[in-house]
Amino acid sequence: MADEVKLFAIAISPFVCRVKLALNMKGIKYQNLEEDFPNRSTQLLRYNPLHKKVPVLVHNGNPISESLVIVEYIDDVWKQVPIFPQDPYQKAVARFWVKFIDEKCIPALHNVFGNNGGEQVVAEACENLQVLENEVGVKGKRFFGGDNMDIVDIVAGFIAYWLGLMEEATQIKIFTEDKFPKLTKWSDEFVNCQVVKEILPPRSLEILPPRSLVLAYYKKRFSKG
Amino acid sequence: MADEVKLFAIAISPFVCRVKLALNMKGIKYQNLEEDFPNRSTQLLRYNPLHKKVPVLVHNGNPISESLVIVEYIDDVWKQVPIFPQDPYQKAVARFWVKFIDEKCIPALHNVFGNNGGEQVVAEACENLQVLENEVGVKGKRFFGGDNMDIVDIVAGFIAYWLGLMEEATQIKIFTEDKFPKLTKWSDEFVNCQVVKEILPPRSLEILPPRSLVLAYYKKRFSKG
Repeated sequence: MADEVKLFAIAISPFVCRVKLALNMKGIKYQNLEEDFPNRSTQLLRYNPLHKKVPVLVHNGNPISESLVIVEYIDDVWKQVPIFPQDPYQKAVARFWVKFIDEKCIPALHNVFGNNGGEQVVAEACENLQVLENEVGVKGKRFFGGDNMDIVDIVAGFIAYWLGLMEEATQIKIFTEDKFPKLTKWSDEFVNCQVVKEILPPRSLEILPPRSLVLAYYKKRFSKG
Repeated sequence: MADEVKLFAIAISPFVCRVKLALNMKGIKYQNLEEDFPNRSTQLLRYNPLHKKVPVLVHNGNPISESLVIVEYIDDVWKQVPIFPQDPYQKAVARFWVKFIDEKCIPALHNVFGNNGGEQVVAEACENLQVLENEVGVKGKRFFGGDNMDIVDIVAGFIAYWLGLMEEATQIKIFTEDKFPKLTKWSDEFVNCQVVKEILPPRSLEILPPRSLVLAYYKKRFSKG
């Protein structure tokens, strides 16, 4: 029996795009079920009653929530094109950076735009980006994962794509080539990978909203009052 | 060559105790290196320069930080007494609950004691505990993991032991048998397991502080002014 894979999604979500990228890297076909927030489908509410959020992956009837949990599951079930390093120590190191990006970097960046670019929040966000700037060249390769993308690249994708949209929506610029040359180079490499291009909002399937809609979302989200 | 396993620790930390419990469940011998905060050792600063925090596990010279990353590493390297479910879907479900406890429950509980038990923060914490109350009996077994403890039990250990200390230190009581009968029963089972008793602060090795010191720590932490 062929696998039945469904993804409850909203196209602009960076967390949904992590899952789409993992599926795309492994060449797994799936049915994309676009949600219309805040009018969640009854199916989504049934599959993720606790958080009521996308992404939710449903594999042969089994629902899985939380983007990182889903990506780990995908990597456990479909072995082609590994997303996590195979060596236990390298795997632990990757998990460490994933936690850092998810729990430090991304909240600090949201703080910048949510607080209208105050000096202290900008300093904190830049400090975190600097840590990644120092890390991205360590293996002397294109990606955090080395020659090929891995889970750290997938999670850092937020910086490569969504950060620029937030900056454009708020007119607050913090991620510059001048300050973060290696991270900028990595961002360019990342968004220009075919496997990434195919899943990002603007250049993807017709059902996905154009870049302007993502921009409008962030304008609304970070506008005052 | 025998494995060299060192753990940089402070005895009262619930996050350190996760790692100790994982090591103890698997019967792995290790050297416990007790840190004296805030006077961190130069070794700790070298091994965890970014967060400067315990726990840090050093396995044959390779340092690993972040309690969950360490526990996953331990489970990857030493296969006896599995901590994560072996089935990919059950593993994903366990990861989902670990995230819920770590990112929702524990911060909500800290909020209660940090905000002197305000009505709203108590309601939110109880709502999260209720979710676990509904979950713990689902398999009709003693533990979240079923007949045996798994990663969810290890992470929920915070509720079984440290929550009571916080309550005692602040005189704010929210976790009652009346409201959470199944979670209370689970807590009793958990702290009375031999493998848990051996690693908890009060009954462990002589170098560990007695229960009163943990209590004093929380009294100071949650006191005003």
